[in-house]
Amino acid sequence: MATEQKPVGVAVLGYGNVGSEVVRIIENSAADLAARIGAPLVLRGVGVRRVNANRGVPIGLLTDDIDGLVSRDDVDIVVELMGPVEPARKAILTAIEHGKSVVTANKALLASSTGDLARAAERAHVDLYFEAAVAGAIPVIRPLTQSLAGDTVQRVAGIVNGTTNYILSEMETTGADYASALADASVLGYAEADPSADVDGYDAASKAAILASIAFHTTVTADDVYREGITAITPDDFVSARALNCTIKLLAICERITDADGTEMVSARVYPALVPATHPLATVGGAFNAVVVEAEASGRVMFYGQGAGGTPTASAVAGDIVMAARNRVQGGRGPRESKYAQLPIAPIGKVSTRYYVSMDVADKPGVLAAVAAEFAKREVSIAEVRQEGVVDDGGQRVGARIVVVTHRATDAALSETVRALEDLDAVASVASVLRLEGTNP
Amino acid sequence: MATEQKPVGVAVLGYGNVGSEVVRIIENSAADLAARIGAPLVLRGVGVRRVNANRGVPIGLLTDDIDGLVSRDDVDIVVELMGPVEPARKAILTAIEHGKSVVTANKALLASSTGDLARAAERAHVDLYFEAAVAGAIPVIRPLTQSLAGDTVQRVAGIVNGTTNYILSEMETTGADYASALADASVLGYAEADPSADVDGYDAASKAAILASIAFHTTVTADDVYREGITAITPDDFVSARALNCTIKLLAICERITDADGTEMVSARVYPALVPATHPLATVGGAFNAVVVEAEASGRVMFYGQGAGGTPTASAVAGDIVMAARNRVQGGRGPRESKYAQLPIAPIGKVSTRYYVSMDVADKPGVLAAVAAEFAKREVSIAEVRQEGVVDDGGQRVGARIVVVTHRATDAALSETVRALEDLDAVASVASVLRLEGTNP
Repeated sequence: MATEQKPVGVAVLGYGNVGSEVVRIIENSAADLAARIGAPLVLRGVGVRRVNANRGVPIGLLTDDIDGLVSRDDVDIVVELMGPVEPARKAILTAIEHGKSVVTANKALLASSTGDLARAAERAHVDLYFEAAVAGAIPVIRPLTQSLAGDTVQRVAGIVNGTTNYILSEMETTGADYASALADASVLGYAEADPSADVDGYDAASKAAILASIAFHTTVTADDVYREGITAITPDDFVSARALNCTIKLLAICERITDADGTEMVSARVYPALVPATHPLATVGGAFNAVVVEAEASGRVMFYGQGAGGTPTASAVAGDIVMAARNRVQGGRGPRESKYAQLPIAPIGKVSTRYYVSMDVADKPGVLAAVAAEFAKREVSIAEVRQEGVVDDGGQRVGARIVVVTHRATDAALSETVRALEDLDAVASVASVLRLEGTNP
Repeated sequence: MATEQKPVGVAVLGYGNVGSEVVRIIENSAADLAARIGAPLVLRGVGVRRVNANRGVPIGLLTDDIDGLVSRDDVDIVVELMGPVEPARKAILTAIEHGKSVVTANKALLASSTGDLARAAERAHVDLYFEAAVAGAIPVIRPLTQSLAGDTVQRVAGIVNGTTNYILSEMETTGADYASALADASVLGYAEADPSADVDGYDAASKAAILASIAFHTTVTADDVYREGITAITPDDFVSARALNCTIKLLAICERITDADGTEMVSARVYPALVPATHPLATVGGAFNAVVVEAEASGRVMFYGQGAGGTPTASAVAGDIVMAARNRVQGGRGPRESKYAQLPIAPIGKVSTRYYVSMDVADKPGVLAAVAAEFAKREVSIAEVRQEGVVDDGGQRVGARIVVVTHRATDAALSETVRALEDLDAVASVASVLRLEGTNP
């Protein structure tokens, strides 16, 4: 039955880790995919920058004429896995203009878009799917856009970057400093030659923008996401974290917040944070990803799995291809994200969370009182404070360190407090400020 | 824009915990739902067994004429939350015949069906959604049918019944026996007056049938699911489990297995099993649910959240309503499960797993050798064996207990071994046989 149907033509752009796995799945699972789609799936061509042999696909399928490939009459679905924002954007828009449905894993492109790709797909009445753009093999886009479509999402918090999670897990387990954990990650292929996209939080910020957009039905771009990376995290921070029965994770957080005057806003942010050991995200180790969604009716739902890697990512891409192909065969389109809400972006200063502040102080009476006064002045309530002596190599006490854990306060109030602390004579320096997420106030 | 569209009419059948929450969501989130759907959602009526006041819905909306309600011209979507297989099946088929899309949480009905509901929906070209039928608020149906549509699922293992998970968690934590843990669960409202559907594994078996059907694109009914409940689990089993660094969970397992002659089969089964403390399912406590999916490309993906309760289940139902309504507005249909594979059901004898067997034996030399010989004869390889003395109240040694943990073996070989052990003179009785899941061989 299935084979009598007109085949669905697929063009794959990019033949790296993910692209080659997608081609392998299309070829090796042909019979199953045809049965699920109701028509055979046929690979029409693979677009690459330079055509050369030894790629593992018949040379006749390779082409560097991307424009030509995506506008071919016998191509129904274009799978964009080339990487950078350009030329991917141009290729996708050309494909859409020619009536092709598009599957992409390009988070940077999706997160830089203010919805122009979605609008183009809407106008052309084609599908634009991107399950693989966030958290690799883990289904999060469909659960958010479909399963939770009748609920009100309050918060999405996730570990969405495997490289930084590997580095932080490594620092925690071995006591290594950031530089050597990064070096280990590079040797194992977890970190790129230029690790900035990962360690400075750009990759996680793109994913946060995508998650916030679909969770809250609004437009959030990567530029709207407040971002801090992990490069300043020290072994000392992990020692302090352990003392608080916490670990440190780079979190992407998307939150619906209500301003003092009742305005509903969206906060999207990426930063390393203390997470209690009992929180489900604390146990997500190594290169794994996890996303926790909190919605009004569903409560807390968690998704966990492999967030990167050619094969797992290809699973998500292949799922999108099957869905887009089914829609072609049945003459419909899948549901798409809605952007009706148009919520303003909350500046980081308005975001409330808890904080851990450690500072080096003079070892003399009255210091703790002076420090506590600065917190009190700005209504930042202290939950816990600890003072430890700092000794030099000879065992001589040379100063003290104060660690403060606050209750919930706005980022603005906390930042002002930290500036004031730095101005105090008794405070030599504020060593570290980290947010504490995943606890009740 | 949205409000100029013709509204989408909804009829809700059943007004219990879930039904009343669904009605609440439709009313309280009206503006949001309308924006997401592209048209307003209007509640046309609520079908109940007996119309009486004080239900919290306007009396005019209540009706006991189910047939009349589901065939009304201004109803587009029928939401079936009545419960038992009948009259739910009749109501759903009538609704489908009248061209209505159907959303249901009725796992018993879905699992007793060999596909007649799906075929009726196919013929009538309407949607049949049931995200809420398995694991409440946790999205598992859409991830399996859509996100993993391009992958080959090998195994689905889940904790899908909150009542039994609560009872087992309670037994583990407090050392209580089954009867008193069940009594606690009843007091807290976690167990029904007649707990059989939960504790004998019928509810989990329905969910296993649904999961196996969609994961493997084949037909599996509840009758095809091998089933053991938790009523025979003793505090002793938990002591033994702890000694093996395991816990005990009621698992629903769906697995693709290959027979000795190369035939591909599906195994679907529900039983209490030892699970290593390090396995992600081991930490799922209380009334929570979790489902782990293992697929060829994606690797292991886990979903976790609240598996029951009116409000979480209503979230899943509301998501289905929004998706069915969007399809109405856009003139299409959603993707449905495919059943092309028609895999045979594997009898339990052909299923391979590991086992824990404890037995009371005579305290004399040669017993261990005799016991080991029975395992060896049937090629059941022993991984670990432990012998302990059993003492009476006076501190007198009166016998011994042998605990054996096997490597992977077929259920047939293990069952035969157990029968042979029971026939041995030296073995007083086989106290307990439990499967060990979630480890490598």
